[in-house]
Amino acid sequence: MDAISVIRAKRDRHELSDEQIDWVIDAYTRGGVADEQMSALAMAILLNGMNRREIARWTAAMIASGERMEFSSLSRPTADKHSTGGVGDKITLPLAPLVAACGAAVPQLSGRGLGHTGGTLDKLESIPGWRATLSNAELLGVLDSTGAVICAAGDGLAPADKKLYALRDVTGTVEAIELIASSIMSKKIAEGTGSLVLDVKCGSGAFMKTEADARELAETMVGLGTDHGVRTVALLTDMATPLGLTAGNALEVRESVEVLAGGGPADVVELTLALAREMLAAAGLGDRDPAKALADGSAMDVWRRMISAQGGDPDAPLPRSREQHVVTAPTDGVLTRLDAYDIGVAAWRLGAGRARKEDPVQAAAGVELHAKPGDTVRAGTPLLTLHTDTEDRFAYALESLTAAYDIAPTGTEFTRRPIVLDRVG
Amino acid sequence: MDAISVIRAKRDRHELSDEQIDWVIDAYTRGGVADEQMSALAMAILLNGMNRREIARWTAAMIASGERMEFSSLSRPTADKHSTGGVGDKITLPLAPLVAACGAAVPQLSGRGLGHTGGTLDKLESIPGWRATLSNAELLGVLDSTGAVICAAGDGLAPADKKLYALRDVTGTVEAIELIASSIMSKKIAEGTGSLVLDVKCGSGAFMKTEADARELAETMVGLGTDHGVRTVALLTDMATPLGLTAGNALEVRESVEVLAGGGPADVVELTLALAREMLAAAGLGDRDPAKALADGSAMDVWRRMISAQGGDPDAPLPRSREQHVVTAPTDGVLTRLDAYDIGVAAWRLGAGRARKEDPVQAAAGVELHAKPGDTVRAGTPLLTLHTDTEDRFAYALESLTAAYDIAPTGTEFTRRPIVLDRVG
Repeated sequence: MDAISVIRAKRDRHELSDEQIDWVIDAYTRGGVADEQMSALAMAILLNGMNRREIARWTAAMIASGERMEFSSLSRPTADKHSTGGVGDKITLPLAPLVAACGAAVPQLSGRGLGHTGGTLDKLESIPGWRATLSNAELLGVLDSTGAVICAAGDGLAPADKKLYALRDVTGTVEAIELIASSIMSKKIAEGTGSLVLDVKCGSGAFMKTEADARELAETMVGLGTDHGVRTVALLTDMATPLGLTAGNALEVRESVEVLAGGGPADVVELTLALAREMLAAAGLGDRDPAKALADGSAMDVWRRMISAQGGDPDAPLPRSREQHVVTAPTDGVLTRLDAYDIGVAAWRLGAGRARKEDPVQAAAGVELHAKPGDTVRAGTPLLTLHTDTEDRFAYALESLTAAYDIAPTGTEFTRRPIVLDRVG
Repeated sequence: MDAISVIRAKRDRHELSDEQIDWVIDAYTRGGVADEQMSALAMAILLNGMNRREIARWTAAMIASGERMEFSSLSRPTADKHSTGGVGDKITLPLAPLVAACGAAVPQLSGRGLGHTGGTLDKLESIPGWRATLSNAELLGVLDSTGAVICAAGDGLAPADKKLYALRDVTGTVEAIELIASSIMSKKIAEGTGSLVLDVKCGSGAFMKTEADARELAETMVGLGTDHGVRTVALLTDMATPLGLTAGNALEVRESVEVLAGGGPADVVELTLALAREMLAAAGLGDRDPAKALADGSAMDVWRRMISAQGGDPDAPLPRSREQHVVTAPTDGVLTRLDAYDIGVAAWRLGAGRARKEDPVQAAAGVELHAKPGDTVRAGTPLLTLHTDTEDRFAYALESLTAAYDIAPTGTEFTRRPIVLDRVG
């Protein structure tokens, strides 16, 4: 078995055998297959595809490259969620404590933002004192005592995926549904959850721009989860416009707390409840009502305990930006489009995101929206407020907003797109 | 400009712009584009192709990555030959002195063998004292005084190609006609010859297995040479069976000297003369008769002076193998097939070739053929003699010969395939 013969096989449109897949993932993890060999293979996979058996084996091999977590000692059923990433997607923050308040154990091993999409850990780190990195024992302790934990995934989970993900990022091989699906699912299956709900986003602010691509990714991941004994469903959800009214770290924590307090933007509440219902059903707790747990404050109680358990002060004031710039509506009318990607890029450029993994982020940077598609706007009134600690970033952020929205004449009919477009699984 | 956008463009089947090609070749040569990025791009090129403009620019960028040689100070027109490589292909050895004897200057910057095909420098190094590495001044001195020089290409010629060639070798991206053509032609054009004859081989022992692939490669290279002002023609030649009666280093030198002495196997003489005529015509010396220069000993004179000028002793006995093994014909009949690839692999395994660039080769190892397709054979008489200095290699070499030949019943009609299949340009 050697790397060149595996590369050639996929290059020449053959199926990879189980032995070839096991060998190449193991050898890559150990350094016996070089980065330049794996990137050539990744490009061949991107262009020539893998069938369901190959994807399943590829995923299994990545899981086998590291440790697997085990939640069977918990008294509650586990439920997990994964989002493919979007702009203003703070849903994990209210969702994890909400589902925990309804009786499930919710381990959310999360990541950081890269590019125009934010990262859950970056958002929570804007809470003074909060710590993302826990040992496996601490993770289980927080999960057992509060019902929910959001923390960084340890280095021991699917190390092959960690290495391959970093490689794909610099070699133009990110956009392969086979590799995206196996990357997500290898981590989630290694985490040991019993059920998983996938939030597969589509639209300008998402990775998958079309519903067809999003559906293919969703079906692939649901198949992988099911094959590995994880009850898996996916919701296809809209990411043409940002979720809620904020994109940025502290800004999104504030909005999440509003949702836990029983308020918050309608779309965030709707999607949080839809995902919560799916998670509870998958965990065998379909009789619980998450709307009640939002209304009666029990979800907020879990949030406060969860944040405290990781060193955070849920009552501490969140960082506020040093500089603000307001973008006003140029005319009266109806806002018919507010582009998720453009808003995401603006928030990124304001300091909410990072260009390279090692860059720091600004806790207070981001974009606040004062209107959403369908809303009536008036000339001269605020449309967006840009936040940053470094004033010289405004010009660069504003560049990404030159075609970010459309305003139609007052009285134009506008039908809001539903948040949840479809369900797979 | 960045590597990922160039990779994505080719991945998504776009044409690369001149600026993208110039940038990526220059940055790769300097280390600004990483090996893992270039291998992903090479795979995308292999699978999605490049058009003629892209290939021409890619070639020009590789030439521009290093120095260009200059032969205008010579009083004679220059003529160069390149073979895409085969088994028993010793043609450069008699051809260079022959064409020089007819009045051209023949600079042959050559390479070493890798895999089942031999290397011209490895062959010549079996001559005691002969030196492959010359400075540019020495090269010009030998060329000026003898009319021909065969030596290693300096590190300064097309360094981008040198780096990319090594990368392709380990990433399954060798077999792209665009990359093969630009690799060969960038070196040849940087060498500064005024005319070039390409020997594009096809058949089991060649890189291109089919005549269609060989023709596409030939047409691509002829186009590139012509675009760069080099008078270029290509012969498509047969490589289904080994050239001549030897495959191995000293064995092939011995056979080359036989040709220069006016003897030697008919196919080697035929191809040497065909290529010599093309080289002389391309150099504006179409009136010279290379058959005469073989017959009157003038080609042998150039050979002796050329070998001596590089420290070699043309009269020294060539190394002989310590161990021999004879393969006999199992039945009476007509030899109808003797597979070039299988013989090449056997010679390689006997020690004539190397598995990795840094491996040594055995001067005396190789395979001698006692019959060629079309010859009548008798049961029990020698078909092949295997040569090596390390007896334990016989078993491994014999494994590659289990299906290397076919013998048809005595009296079977057999038509020899011509050596030169077609001419392009």
